[in-house]
Amino acid sequence: MADYPSISEQVDDLESARTDGHRKMDWAREHMPILTAMQADFEANQPFEGHRIGMAMHVEAKTAVLVETLAEGGADVAITGCNPLSTHDDVSAALDEHPNITSYAKREVDDEEYYEAIEAVISHEPTITVDDGMDLVAAIHEDYPELIDSIVGGCEETTTGVHRLRAMDEDGALKYPVFAVNDTPMKRLFDNVHGTGESSLANIAMTTNLSWAGKNVVVAGYGDCGRGVAKKASGQNANVIVTEVEPRRALEAHMEGYDVMPMTEAAKIGDVFLTTTGNRDVITSEHFEKMDDGVLLANAGHFDVEVNLDDLSDLAVNQREARDGVREYEMEDGRRLNVLAEGRLVNLASPIALGHPVEVMDQSFGVQAASVRELVENGDQYDAGVHEVPDELDREIAEIKLDAEGVEYDDLTPEQEEYMGSWQHGT
Amino acid sequence: MADYPSISEQVDDLESARTDGHRKMDWAREHMPILTAMQADFEANQPFEGHRIGMAMHVEAKTAVLVETLAEGGADVAITGCNPLSTHDDVSAALDEHPNITSYAKREVDDEEYYEAIEAVISHEPTITVDDGMDLVAAIHEDYPELIDSIVGGCEETTTGVHRLRAMDEDGALKYPVFAVNDTPMKRLFDNVHGTGESSLANIAMTTNLSWAGKNVVVAGYGDCGRGVAKKASGQNANVIVTEVEPRRALEAHMEGYDVMPMTEAAKIGDVFLTTTGNRDVITSEHFEKMDDGVLLANAGHFDVEVNLDDLSDLAVNQREARDGVREYEMEDGRRLNVLAEGRLVNLASPIALGHPVEVMDQSFGVQAASVRELVENGDQYDAGVHEVPDELDREIAEIKLDAEGVEYDDLTPEQEEYMGSWQHGT
Amino acid sequence: MADYPSISEQVDDLESARTDGHRKMDWAREHMPILTAMQADFEANQPFEGHRIGMAMHVEAKTAVLVETLAEGGADVAITGCNPLSTHDDVSAALDEHPNITSYAKREVDDEEYYEAIEAVISHEPTITVDDGMDLVAAIHEDYPELIDSIVGGCEETTTGVHRLRAMDEDGALKYPVFAVNDTPMKRLFDNVHGTGESSLANIAMTTNLSWAGKNVVVAGYGDCGRGVAKKASGQNANVIVTEVEPRRALEAHMEGYDVMPMTEAAKIGDVFLTTTGNRDVITSEHFEKMDDGVLLANAGHFDVEVNLDDLSDLAVNQREARDGVREYEMEDGRRLNVLAEGRLVNLASPIALGHPVEVMDQSFGVQAASVRELVENGDQYDAGVHEVPDELDREIAEIKLDAEGVEYDDLTPEQEEYMGSWQHGT
Amino acid sequence: MADYPSISEQVDDLESARTDGHRKMDWAREHMPILTAMQADFEANQPFEGHRIGMAMHVEAKTAVLVETLAEGGADVAITGCNPLSTHDDVSAALDEHPNITSYAKREVDDEEYYEAIEAVISHEPTITVDDGMDLVAAIHEDYPELIDSIVGGCEETTTGVHRLRAMDEDGALKYPVFAVNDTPMKRLFDNVHGTGESSLANIAMTTNLSWAGKNVVVAGYGDCGRGVAKKASGQNANVIVTEVEPRRALEAHMEGYDVMPMTEAAKIGDVFLTTTGNRDVITSEHFEKMDDGVLLANAGHFDVEVNLDDLSDLAVNQREARDGVREYEMEDGRRLNVLAEGRLVNLASPIALGHPVEVMDQSFGVQAASVRELVENGDQYDAGVHEVPDELDREIAEIKLDAEGVEYDDLTPEQEEYMGSWQHGT
Repeated sequence: MADYPSISEQVDDLESARTDGHRKMDWAREHMPILTAMQADFEANQPFEGHRIGMAMHVEAKTAVLVETLAEGGADVAITGCNPLSTHDDVSAALDEHPNITSYAKREVDDEEYYEAIEAVISHEPTITVDDGMDLVAAIHEDYPELIDSIVGGCEETTTGVHRLRAMDEDGALKYPVFAVNDTPMKRLFDNVHGTGESSLANIAMTTNLSWAGKNVVVAGYGDCGRGVAKKASGQNANVIVTEVEPRRALEAHMEGYDVMPMTEAAKIGDVFLTTTGNRDVITSEHFEKMDDGVLLANAGHFDVEVNLDDLSDLAVNQREARDGVREYEMEDGRRLNVLAEGRLVNLASPIALGHPVEVMDQSFGVQAASVRELVENGDQYDAGVHEVPDELDREIAEIKLDAEGVEYDDLTPEQEEYMGSWQHGT
Repeated sequence: MADYPSISEQVDDLESARTDGHRKMDWAREHMPILTAMQADFEANQPFEGHRIGMAMHVEAKTAVLVETLAEGGADVAITGCNPLSTHDDVSAALDEHPNITSYAKREVDDEEYYEAIEAVISHEPTITVDDGMDLVAAIHEDYPELIDSIVGGCEETTTGVHRLRAMDEDGALKYPVFAVNDTPMKRLFDNVHGTGESSLANIAMTTNLSWAGKNVVVAGYGDCGRGVAKKASGQNANVIVTEVEPRRALEAHMEGYDVMPMTEAAKIGDVFLTTTGNRDVITSEHFEKMDDGVLLANAGHFDVEVNLDDLSDLAVNQREARDGVREYEMEDGRRLNVLAEGRLVNLASPIALGHPVEVMDQSFGVQAASVRELVENGDQYDAGVHEVPDELDREIAEIKLDAEGVEYDDLTPEQEEYMGSWQHGT
Repeated sequence: MADYPSISEQVDDLESARTDGHRKMDWAREHMPILTAMQADFEANQPFEGHRIGMAMHVEAKTAVLVETLAEGGADVAITGCNPLSTHDDVSAALDEHPNITSYAKREVDDEEYYEAIEAVISHEPTITVDDGMDLVAAIHEDYPELIDSIVGGCEETTTGVHRLRAMDEDGALKYPVFAVNDTPMKRLFDNVHGTGESSLANIAMTTNLSWAGKNVVVAGYGDCGRGVAKKASGQNANVIVTEVEPRRALEAHMEGYDVMPMTEAAKIGDVFLTTTGNRDVITSEHFEKMDDGVLLANAGHFDVEVNLDDLSDLAVNQREARDGVREYEMEDGRRLNVLAEGRLVNLASPIALGHPVEVMDQSFGVQAASVRELVENGDQYDAGVHEVPDELDREIAEIKLDAEGVEYDDLTPEQEEYMGSWQHGT
Repeated sequence: MADYPSISEQVDDLESARTDGHRKMDWAREHMPILTAMQADFEANQPFEGHRIGMAMHVEAKTAVLVETLAEGGADVAITGCNPLSTHDDVSAALDEHPNITSYAKREVDDEEYYEAIEAVISHEPTITVDDGMDLVAAIHEDYPELIDSIVGGCEETTTGVHRLRAMDEDGALKYPVFAVNDTPMKRLFDNVHGTGESSLANIAMTTNLSWAGKNVVVAGYGDCGRGVAKKASGQNANVIVTEVEPRRALEAHMEGYDVMPMTEAAKIGDVFLTTTGNRDVITSEHFEKMDDGVLLANAGHFDVEVNLDDLSDLAVNQREARDGVREYEMEDGRRLNVLAEGRLVNLASPIALGHPVEVMDQSFGVQAASVRELVENGDQYDAGVHEVPDELDREIAEIKLDAEGVEYDDLTPEQEEYMGSWQHGT
């Protein structure tokens, strides 16, 4: 496996691919002020010198800027994809051009190649792992336990990865510290509200050629994502209707000025339905039967189980692609129900989707980069197991972003610090 | 020219083209409640029986629903394109399948073919003309004056067409009545505010993979379009900055809560610039020189003269396509200024653009259909010349839309009518 | 009547009254940048030198700043009230202290005194009249026609006054030019939308101790006032429901994202009802019968005929003052319907009401001051009759306001002027 | 002290006082659906039978509805004020009329009477205490420790009270369980955002006669209160500027679309300043010196230390009451800075203030009533010390509110519960 070929040995027109890859990375970097600022700092201070970072992530332009940032900080980086369909070969080739980076990521590899590429990364004997779905952590623990002693720690980007790591941790099977990058405020408060909200609506508009003004938009779930979708839809002059199962969230939505009602009622009047619950079967037969001709059904939750497509297929007398990215289900009475992006995340799976907005990934990857630095600097202070990212790192990323955008804010005076402190201590 | 071939004789795989065309028309029709309702009425009453309608318009799905609506009302329709690049051959072929419709529209015809197709339409001896740029009116007046006596009137969709018709009218050269469909409230209050606003923002988001939250968005011009863009950008949590030259509009923007400043100041802090003034040279060298690295420049006004690209080219030491639909101009000091859609209407000319939203065209085309009906029913009451669409027709379209959407509203009681009347007369 | 006493001869503790009056005027002036700027200009240029201005207006702090502005410009001003209940004696006394001003306005005078005070103003032989309800114009035309020759013109602030003047004009009875200050964009676009909207909501909140969040707020009428109320209520997180009789306005409200429905439906779900139609009987028995216990009924339209209080009294088995400014009508089934401010303009007639916001009156009075200056400078160019305020004066007030607030904006370049001109002329 | 007189023995015209008190309570109750629903339930089930509840709270109409609710549930209630200036004697007298209630609360009692009234409450030997500032808990622990054994628990409404109780608890000095009612989501998410936001703005508008449109409103602090003020001010078309010391909050405000800057910069451009930080010296000399003439300074944070009035007095060459509730400080250069409500909570301390909105107190008091019920039913399960209100009680109040308002929402199906559960457990 040590001789698994890097991407540069696999693409046809390497120069052209690298040009395209750099062009994509340039655009992303131009709009990633956090990573740009960190990169400048890392270049100057070389915090990662002597470290080897193994990565398995979606190899596209935004991730590439993170990879480059770590490499510029002195790390040797070896990377492969975490999903064979998300790799951009041109970006992979551009990365591989960097003297400190070896990229094995290639689009549409088969299963065998996929795991060979992971082993190729591991063959670099990483001291730090960065995962998007814990592929590296799993492979190392299973097949290369001899490497664990020299690993200072890892970072995990996804919800699913964090859950599996926590399960390992509870079983005492996780042998080095891993940061749960997924759970930080800098991700949750921005990615979900602004990133999911804006990109879901833009994808729907550009897939359907329809407008939002005056539409009844039913938002299922009023968590962070639901809040974002509701707020942005309202900001496009839609009439927002919220469905919820938790009464305090329902009350929050009601007090925000939205209509709140059960899905069985909302089904009768909605023009567009957007699910954000994280649960299954949010929209089912009993709802489909009440819907108007021409409604749009889209999902902004993680899995494609929120709109029950089996139910819908059963009800349909006819199906067809009404447009690219829009599947029309014709009911017996002639009504047409239109499902976007096969009920998968509409901002990722629609045909024109570009993934999360650049700025949002800049924040998440900023936390990644700071977490890697923390492992290098203080990794020995963390026990094996899953750890939350230290609050001051998260806060630091906010500081960098504000600084990069030229947004200034206040400092507490010593007197104010004391006043707040005394208050908190009850004097 | 009578033997100029219809589209059906020109496409390769006619059946497949018609299927695709019908699929596109189905989608549009599904979201055009006004035309759908009018079509049902026209089918029942056949108002256009015995009439021949000649049309020269953008032959794509939304227009096709208008054409079909007129044909279902008993008219014989002959149509061709008003721009060789805007025709969808599949839609054209689907239209041509209708027994009452002959379509000559074909994409990428040369100049000679373009005008032969117009003559082919005229060869049907239309009693009514429907233009999008006055091609038919012009050709008939110049080359087929003998047809004018049997023509009851025409409709013109565009600003430019209306202006040229008014000039003709002033010279006494316009020989039959033409409605200025472009200028009605049902178009102006909705198309400009909601249609332009939403589609401009969605196109920019999906072209750039960027988000709006926290961006300084500079909107040049606070007319109907500027208002729409500002409102929708604010609804996506942008910080909106308005530039204006008319003090009352500037004050309206200020009182709305937006920052108002000259472009020379806005240039220093804007992240995205959107021009909507209808004027030229709104953003020029003196502004480019002050802009930050990475700004986006887009235009939502009619012509591509608002952002001065000559100035920008002169300043640039380098240009390249940073992304599809994004041209990057690199300044001597390294700053990169990104122009979207070559400074043309960003919601029409960007690579992923779909044109105006379906619902907006439903309103405009509803006014078209009602205007054609008015010509058939009362055309003899209009002198030769340009006419405003009667207010009650415009109002009727609003009624149909509300009815189709199930929105009910109140009627004045006789006592209330009298009260309002007496008030207006000063008692 | 020449010996009708000025206010200074009538108040008990003159010094104290003047102190209070100045205190009120200081506050108003501090927040009236337009009049402040005009006052500085008038002081320097003395445009009104040699003119005598007769005024009959609401003598309270905001008006007083206008009066003072004219006096500082060199005019001799004589003023009295236009309504015996709206005069603030302390403000009247403070005005009367000014060497160029004589004020006869006194609160709670009887009818005879009221008209004597008007004659006292006329006895100053005004060359210009400024009216708020055409009292001066009427008295001069009826009883002092000999003064008309020396009068250069007048200004009228109110809708009602303008209507009566137009009737006079049609009869050929109006013998000097009068500006309809009421109708300018600078009043209509700001006073109605922002002034009425904000002050109506603030009055209701502070009268009832209730909040807006999550309330169903029914706004009757979607003209300028209705738009303002709907927008501001939505901005406090109310769920806005609009009723209308004009379909395009109904559609505009619908496309804004509001629920639109007939009042008979809205009556069932509304928590707060606000009428802004200018019509009568907007809410009547058939609606009262459907309303929930505890609803609020308020009016923001000109007259107290929108909520039919006769109907409500007939239905009620009991009435009482539930709070200051809130009359509770108890229905037979126990439901309580609460009418604010007796169904009169809630932002003027509620017990804590302060009238229109200062800034709004600054704009209206700025137009007044500019109109008076226009009469002095160009009065001979206006025929006897009602005239619109010239657009450039209205525009000038916007310029002064923007300048006073430090808001800068752009100028057209000569090339841009030419471009716009050529466009408008159809080249 | 057992013979300390109830309010009924102290007011002059008892019948009239009771009528007024009931009128105020009627209004509050009419808009308190949660307490109304709980009262109906308590009347039917008599949960508090046999219990004696001692209370020390602000005896005004909203609190009175809580007291009545507990009494209707079978409790014997004895109450006095927690601040001599907040008692409404008429409401106190109306309460005292109830057979189960004795009220000792009287306005403007002196210190000795104040504490005698507290002892009078304690003389009823309460089994439950309800405090607004821990007066009862303190007095019982200090002077009547023999009662503690029969006390099942207490409730504390305020932040300050909770802090002092926590200190006692840490010292092992707190001898019975007390619920920290102050800290529940049902209070925090609504009271702070909607209650503080709306009532602060309405108080400022009605105190100053000014409008919000186009104003630069500087909000200091972006916690729950700051968010509320910013959101509501933006909803009135103000241009909101936020100052913060915590970078993530600053970034949240920035991403919401607000301007973020240090107070030294905001001071130069603000028209209105609203402090919500909970800290001291947020606005000081260095800021006063930069402010424009005519600015408004108001506080919506708990204590009157946010705007440094000592600094302001030192700078001022002159002070006066510019209006009721507005103190004007004149600077040496003539600028006038206007402080509202003496820098105390503007929605409570302004002359026209009515306290928090009724609906907000309904939610907080609903949690109080449920907490008292929990003590009665399960008090023996709580150790001595400070306890959080159980989450299901908080949730129950949301359910009652939604039910009372007729807002329906969804339930999880068993399959959905399982799916969520399995997810959380990592399968």
